[in-house]
Parts: sequence; C-alpha cells; structure tokens
Amino acid sequence: MSILVVGSVALDSVETPFGSADRVIGGSGVFFTAAASLLAPVRLVGVVGDDYPLEKLDFLTERGVDLSGVERAEGESFFWAGRYSHDLSSRDTLETRLGVFADFKPRIPEAYRDSRYVFLGNIDPVLQLEVLDQMREPAAVICDTMNYWIEGSRDALVELLKRVDILMVNDAEARQLAGDHNLLGAARWIQERGPRLVVVKKGEHGAILFGPDWMFFVPGFPLEVIFDPTGAGDAFAGGFVGHMASVDSQEPDDLRRAMVYGSVMGSYAVESFSVDRFRSLDEKEILHRVMQFKQMTSFEHQLVESDG
Amino acid sequence: MSILVVGSVALDSVETPFGSADRVIGGSGVFFTAAASLLAPVRLVGVVGDDYPLEKLDFLTERGVDLSGVERAEGESFFWAGRYSHDLSSRDTLETRLGVFADFKPRIPEAYRDSRYVFLGNIDPVLQLEVLDQMREPAAVICDTMNYWIEGSRDALVELLKRVDILMVNDAEARQLAGDHNLLGAARWIQERGPRLVVVKKGEHGAILFGPDWMFFVPGFPLEVIFDPTGAGDAFAGGFVGHMASVDSQEPDDLRRAMVYGSVMGSYAVESFSVDRFRSLDEKEILHRVMQFKQMTSFEHQLVESDG
Repeated sequence: MSILVVGSVALDSVETPFGSADRVIGGSGVFFTAAASLLAPVRLVGVVGDDYPLEKLDFLTERGVDLSGVERAEGESFFWAGRYSHDLSSRDTLETRLGVFADFKPRIPEAYRDSRYVFLGNIDPVLQLEVLDQMREPAAVICDTMNYWIEGSRDALVELLKRVDILMVNDAEARQLAGDHNLLGAARWIQERGPRLVVVKKGEHGAILFGPDWMFFVPGFPLEVIFDPTGAGDAFAGGFVGHMASVDSQEPDDLRRAMVYGSVMGSYAVESFSVDRFRSLDEKEILHRVMQFKQMTSFEHQLVESDG
Repeated sequence: MSILVVGSVALDSVETPFGSADRVIGGSGVFFTAAASLLAPVRLVGVVGDDYPLEKLDFLTERGVDLSGVERAEGESFFWAGRYSHDLSSRDTLETRLGVFADFKPRIPEAYRDSRYVFLGNIDPVLQLEVLDQMREPAAVICDTMNYWIEGSRDALVELLKRVDILMVNDAEARQLAGDHNLLGAARWIQERGPRLVVVKKGEHGAILFGPDWMFFVPGFPLEVIFDPTGAGDAFAGGFVGHMASVDSQEPDDLRRAMVYGSVMGSYAVESFSVDRFRSLDEKEILHRVMQFKQMTSFEHQLVESDG
C-alpha cells in the first residue's frame, strides 16, 4: 500500500569525527523515503530550488518512488550545515538557510490523494493540516513535529493532533509538548488529545511505542562506528511506516514488527553520510538485522509461558 | 546457591520531588541484599557504626539473610545525603561522611568462603582483591566500581579485572574505564582485560549485556511515578545475581533472564524510599513484572523463524 510523505528535501553539509560531507542530499522527506521505499511504494511531496542535484535522487525513482510531487522553485534549496561533537553526544548547527522551503505550500497531486498511509514530516502544523484536508481517507496518519512548532504553533499543533493516528517524536519533544518529564505521563497526555499511538524515539537508547493499554520497546542497535547520526530519526519513521504499509495492518503484532523495522533502518542510516547506505541496502541485510534485534531482546520464561 | 555480597551499609537522607526521608537504611550492600534475597540466599559483609538501627534489617534476617558478617564498629555509620532535581534527571550530593566505612577491611567469615556467587560492591579495588583472596572457588565473581576508583586506583582495578567474570557498571563508568565513548568498543576493551561478560546499566534506558559473541538488551520499566531513584542500580545487580544464583547457571538463556530480573528489581526499587518496596514484594509481583517485560519486548517474525 502506498505511502505519502510530505517533508523537507534539503542539502546538508555535515562534519563528524569520521569526516565531512559537503552539500549532500538530506532532509526529513528524503531520509524517510530512502528507508521506507525499501519496504513499500512511496510518493514524496516537497520543494527544491534550482540548485538541487535531482539526479542524486535517481536511485529512488529506479526503486519506484514517485517524485512528481517534488516541486521545483526558483531560488536556493533548503540548506543545513552542522558539526557533531567528538563523541557524537551533541551537534552544533552552523547554518540554516530555508530558501524555497520558506514559502512551501504542499500541493498534493490528484494521483497521491488516495494514499493509504500519510507521513507528515516536521513542518508547520498549519501546513500539516492543509495536507490532511487534501487527502481522501487514509488508513493512518503518522506525524512528526519539533520544539519550534511546540513553542510557536501550539494551538495549531493541538488541533492537528485530533486528526493524527500516530504521533512520532523524540523524548524531549514528547516531554515539552505534554509539559511532563515522565515519558509515560507525557504519552498519556498526548493520547488524550487524539493520537491512538505515540512513538517516542530516544536515539541510541531505542524507542517506545505507547498503545492504548500496552507498550513495546525496541533498543537502538549497538554499532562499533556511528559514522553520521543525521537522519536516523527520519529513517526510523521510514522503516516503521514502510513496514506498516507493506503489511497494510495496524494490529499490535504488526506494529511491534514496525518498531523493529524502524530501529533497523535508523541503525543503517548512521553507517554512512547522507542516505548513502540506503542506495545499496537489500532485503537480506534488512532481515539479517531484524533477526539480530530478535536475538538481542528475546527471552523465555517458563512460568510466564505456562500462565499464558 | 548462596551469594556473598560485600558492600556499604549506610544511612541515607534523601529529598525527591515526592518527599523526603531522613537517615533511612541504604548503601549498595543493603539495596543489593534486599533485592537478591527475594531470589536466593544472601550473606552480607559490611560495617556499621554504633548509631545504626540494626532492627531495620530484621526483615532480611527473617528472610534467611545471614548478617553475621556485618561488623559493628565504634563511631558513625556511613552517611549520604542527596537531593534530586524536580525531573529526577540529576542529583546533588549534599553530604557524605564515610565514618566507620573509611577503615573498612572486609573480613570474610569462614562460613561464607564457599559462597558460589560473589558480588563485589563498589569499594576500593584493593579491598575487592582482598575479598577474592579469602574465597575458595566461586562459580562467578560479579564486580561493580565507580569513577572515583577508575581515576584514583586504575592499576589495582585493572589487576582486579583479571579475576572478575562479570563487570557490572553504568554507561559513564564503562566509557571512562575504557577511554572509549562507544559502548560496544568500551565493552570489548573491558572484555579483553578479563571479564567474560560486561553488563552496562543505563538507568531509565535499561541495560545491555555484552557476551563473548552475543548481546542482550533489557529496557527500563516505564513507571508513572519514580518515587526515589536511589539504589536502583544496586537492586538491578541484586536481581541479576539473585536469579543467576537461584538457577545456578551462567548459560546464555539464564543470563538473559537474569537481566530481566535485574530490571524488574531496579524498577521496584524506585517505587518507594529506601528498600521499603522490598519489605512487602512477593514472588507473584516479581513474576508479573517479568511477564510485563516479555510483553514489552517480544515480537515474532516469520522469515526470521523459518530461517532459524
């Protein structure tokens, strides 16, 4: 089943302890699409300037991604430059230029409006609402946001939440949105405002899915080398929604597997600069890491099992 | 099978957002024992001053804990006072008075020397070595340490590591000991110096066990109220070693379960001040939470299973 993603299509300049990359393709829409398209058909809506190296996205169209919703505007593409600390525990933003992204008004092509799964990347909640107004009847709306909108557009965001099935944010964002440091409390606060499910991403510490009356936890995959953390959260979202769309189900067992696919894609994202790891990643490698997660988390307990 | 634990027997004054407790029983030896004794027989070696309310430990002797190795010395008991921040993300030490603990020289009673499992609480590595010199042939030595010894007694600590089977430290300690920010790299560094297994505790984010060629991850249990985080790490150790001793096995499947028992006990520790939660905790509650961990982490995957 098809996924519609609305998000940024950017150029990133990144410095990590392992090297640097200059004006490589990035942005939440691109990271999400690179990961999700390995699992399900993806349609991307975004905007680029006339400086964007569109041929760098060819590997996505070759994989069946529909990029006809990526608008070309006059001006400069969204640009972000950042530098990570030596231990990757923090990063400084060196430069952000919104360029054509500043005036972005998502227009959903007619052919995209029947998409069964909608991923609203981290943009102005007013625009996220406008996206939903253009859609027919998606099976699930999955939504990201960030501190900038939580502080500056809280009313629109709370309005948006009523129409969101799954809010997917990091731990700091969940706490800030709910005004509750306790994650469980924060998730409950959010669930009372619309989303049936809340996925809280915790970076290297993994992610938690809060369901109506159950939780599922997936760890981060311990890697010897984290080459570039940029985009890991968006790749997580791509893996999660990608699996959900591929099985077209929101049953708890499928959502649990979706969480694992999310963490698998997040772990692959950080192995290279930009979306490079997703150019060559194949099904066998994905399944191999899913199996590693299973080995890393499963345990048996006799009394528990006999109790049912 | 019996566990010998050598650790601090202290008085704590604690302030948390939920209240305060004045001169309540605490210390690594006490938290470890309170948790482990719910699963296996425990013998405690430590020292208290003449101000210690020994009757507060009666619930342990009633449970079969052997406290004859707790020495009574003239002077003041080890005292720690601390205050947690409103979101529990940090704590300030208001006061530490070592008292009789400053001159503590662990003497292992003859009847304790055949203990099959030895837990070396966080004390001077020189003393930890002296404890091992007094033991016959334990099946496993599990060892904790902290930044103070990593900085000030590195040589003795590295010497000690050669005789340790399982090093159990928090993430910051593992990184500091190995001089490697990457947890996997830090664990490998430690394993090259003796311990077959390394357990890295990450507080609310859970814990990872690094085996020779496998890993196991257990999350922290999401709680709506964390009443007092003091002693959670020691209770984790108590649950881990307690389960290991109760099944008298170090097979991977048993170690995985031991990790879960560790996280279960850590989660119960923080529900009350001091060791209060362990006074009433029963087998049914322990198993219930083990089952909750199973529900929170297990997933099935068809292709993985047919491959495996």
